[in-house]
Amino acid sequence: MGEREFIARRLAPLATSPAARGLADDAAVWAPPLGRDLVFTHDVLAAGVHYLPDDPPGDVAWKLLAVNLSDLAAMAATPAGVLLGLAGPDDAAWRDAFIDGLGRALQHFGVALWGGDTVSGLAGHVLGLTAIGWVEPGKAMGRAGAQPGDVLWVSGTIGDAGLGLAVAQGRAPFDRQLLNRFRRPSPRLALGQALGGVATAGMDVSDGLLIDAQRLAAASGVALAIDLAAVPLGRPAADPDELLARVTAGDDYELLFTAPASCDVAALCDTPVTAIGRVLPGAGLALTRAGQPVALPARLGWEHG
Amino acid sequence: MGEREFIARRLAPLATSPAARGLADDAAVWAPPLGRDLVFTHDVLAAGVHYLPDDPPGDVAWKLLAVNLSDLAAMAATPAGVLLGLAGPDDAAWRDAFIDGLGRALQHFGVALWGGDTVSGLAGHVLGLTAIGWVEPGKAMGRAGAQPGDVLWVSGTIGDAGLGLAVAQGRAPFDRQLLNRFRRPSPRLALGQALGGVATAGMDVSDGLLIDAQRLAAASGVALAIDLAAVPLGRPAADPDELLARVTAGDDYELLFTAPASCDVAALCDTPVTAIGRVLPGAGLALTRAGQPVALPARLGWEHG
Repeated sequence: MGEREFIARRLAPLATSPAARGLADDAAVWAPPLGRDLVFTHDVLAAGVHYLPDDPPGDVAWKLLAVNLSDLAAMAATPAGVLLGLAGPDDAAWRDAFIDGLGRALQHFGVALWGGDTVSGLAGHVLGLTAIGWVEPGKAMGRAGAQPGDVLWVSGTIGDAGLGLAVAQGRAPFDRQLLNRFRRPSPRLALGQALGGVATAGMDVSDGLLIDAQRLAAASGVALAIDLAAVPLGRPAADPDELLARVTAGDDYELLFTAPASCDVAALCDTPVTAIGRVLPGAGLALTRAGQPVALPARLGWEHG
Repeated sequence: MGEREFIARRLAPLATSPAARGLADDAAVWAPPLGRDLVFTHDVLAAGVHYLPDDPPGDVAWKLLAVNLSDLAAMAATPAGVLLGLAGPDDAAWRDAFIDGLGRALQHFGVALWGGDTVSGLAGHVLGLTAIGWVEPGKAMGRAGAQPGDVLWVSGTIGDAGLGLAVAQGRAPFDRQLLNRFRRPSPRLALGQALGGVATAGMDVSDGLLIDAQRLAAASGVALAIDLAAVPLGRPAADPDELLARVTAGDDYELLFTAPASCDVAALCDTPVTAIGRVLPGAGLALTRAGQPVALPARLGWEHG
C-alpha cells in the first residue's frame, strides 16, 4: 500500500473532525473557540530511545498521544486536535496495529486527528505528534510563578512507570498494572484544566520527580522542600535507596504543581493529589524524610542526550 | 551538549515570539487573531527520501520550513508559528548548521519558532515541522470547488526543481539556480493569500504538475484540460519527452489553482501566473500540445511509498 492509499484507507477514518477536511487538502482548517488562548506542543517518540522496539505498536500510539496530552494538561489546556508524523520502516503489520491503537486512544481522549504526514523506507520508527488545545485567556499554567509559602503537590502516584520499565525489560516479574503505567500513561487532563488560574506553577513529571521539581524551582526562582516520606507511591519502597529510585524514575506523567496554602486543592477535582512539600525562598531542592535531611542523589532523573 | 542544553543554547534564540515562552514551559501559548480560521499542517522530511543525505544542512532546514509554508500558501493562509521535531544522529556540526539555516529561514519568512522536541542517537535524520497559520473565516482554499468553465492557472515555472535534483545527484552540470529550486523552494505565500476567496480550488505542486492536477480534478469532480505548450518552464524543453519529464517532476512548490474565467488573476499580486488549461465536466486529465491530443504518460509524478 502506497503512502497516499494508506492515508486514505487507514488515517482518514480517524479524521472525524470537519477541521481535517477528510485529509484531502494540504492542511487542516479549524475555527477556534472565540477568545481563548491556544496551546501547542510537539513531542517525538523514537524506537529504542523512548520506548522498547518490541513494545506493542498500539501501546506506542497510546503513549505518543498521552505524552503530548500530558503537556497540554501541564498548561491547563483542553485538547482539540492532533497532527501525526509517522516515519519508519516498511512494516505494514506494525503500522496497522499502531493506527488501530491510535484510533482507540483518540477516541478515549475525545480528540480528533486533523492531519499529518507519513514516510516509509526508514531504519527505525520516529513518531511525532503535535497536540493543539485551548485555555481560558491568561489561565495557562507555567513553570514560573511558585511563591514562597505555597504548597507543593503531586497527582496520582510516582515511580510506578519506572517499575513498569523494569517489567518490560524482563528485569522484574510480569505485572500488568506496572507495565501499563510505563506503556499507557494517563495524562491528567481533568486536573490540569481545574488548576488553570488556581495553581501558581505547574508542569508534568516526565523525567523524574526530583529533576522536574528542580526545573520548576529554577523557573520560579524559588527553593522546593520535599518530604520524601510524603511522596505517594503505588507500591511501597523497601528501603531509602528504593525510594530514591522511584522519585528519579521517569515517565510518570503526573502533574507537579504549587498552590497557595489557603487553596483547597483536593476539592478541585476527583484526581487524587498529595501535598509533598513547600515552596521556600532560595534555590534548588531540600529533601527530608521523617524530618531528617536527605542528601540529593547524584542523578535526579533522565537527562536526555 | 545534552538535549536540554541544546534547546536552551541553540533553539531558544530562535523562539523570539512570546508564544514560545522561551521554550521554558511544556507547551506554547498563543492568542490567535480574533475571528480567524486557523490552518495547521505537518510535513516530515527524511534523509535519503526527501533530500540527499549530503545536502547542506542549512538548505535542508530551509526546505523543511518552505514545504510546510507552501501547504499554508495552498490554503490561502498567513503563517504565524512553527513547532520543530528534530530527530537524528549525534552529529553536532550537522545540527549547528541546520539550526543556523532554520534561523535564517524563519527570519526570511517572518515566522517564529514556538516549540518542539529533539532526539539524538538515531541512524538518520527525520525532521518534522508543524506550521500554524490563519485565514479570513471561510476563505481557506481547498482542492474541491473547481467548476467547469474555470481557467486552470499555475504560478512561477514548472520542472526546475527536477532539473536541480539532477544537478544535486551529479547527473547534470552544476547550475546554482536550478540547485536552489530543488534545495530552497519559495513557498508562494503572497499569491496564496491573494487567492483566498477568489480561487475556486487550489493546491501546491509538490509531486509533479500532472499528478497534482489529477488530484485536484478528482477532489473537485471535474476534468482538467491542460495545454502542455502553455506550461511555463524555467528552461526550454528540447523535445516532447523532456517536456513530459518537467511536468512529472516534483518539488516545484508552485500553486496550481482554478478561478472563474472572468477573474483578472494576474492583477491579484506580483507573483507571475500562467493560464495552462480549463476545467471541463468529467474526470481526469486531457492533455494537448499545439492543439493535438497527447497521451497521458504512465507515470504522472511522485507516488510516495
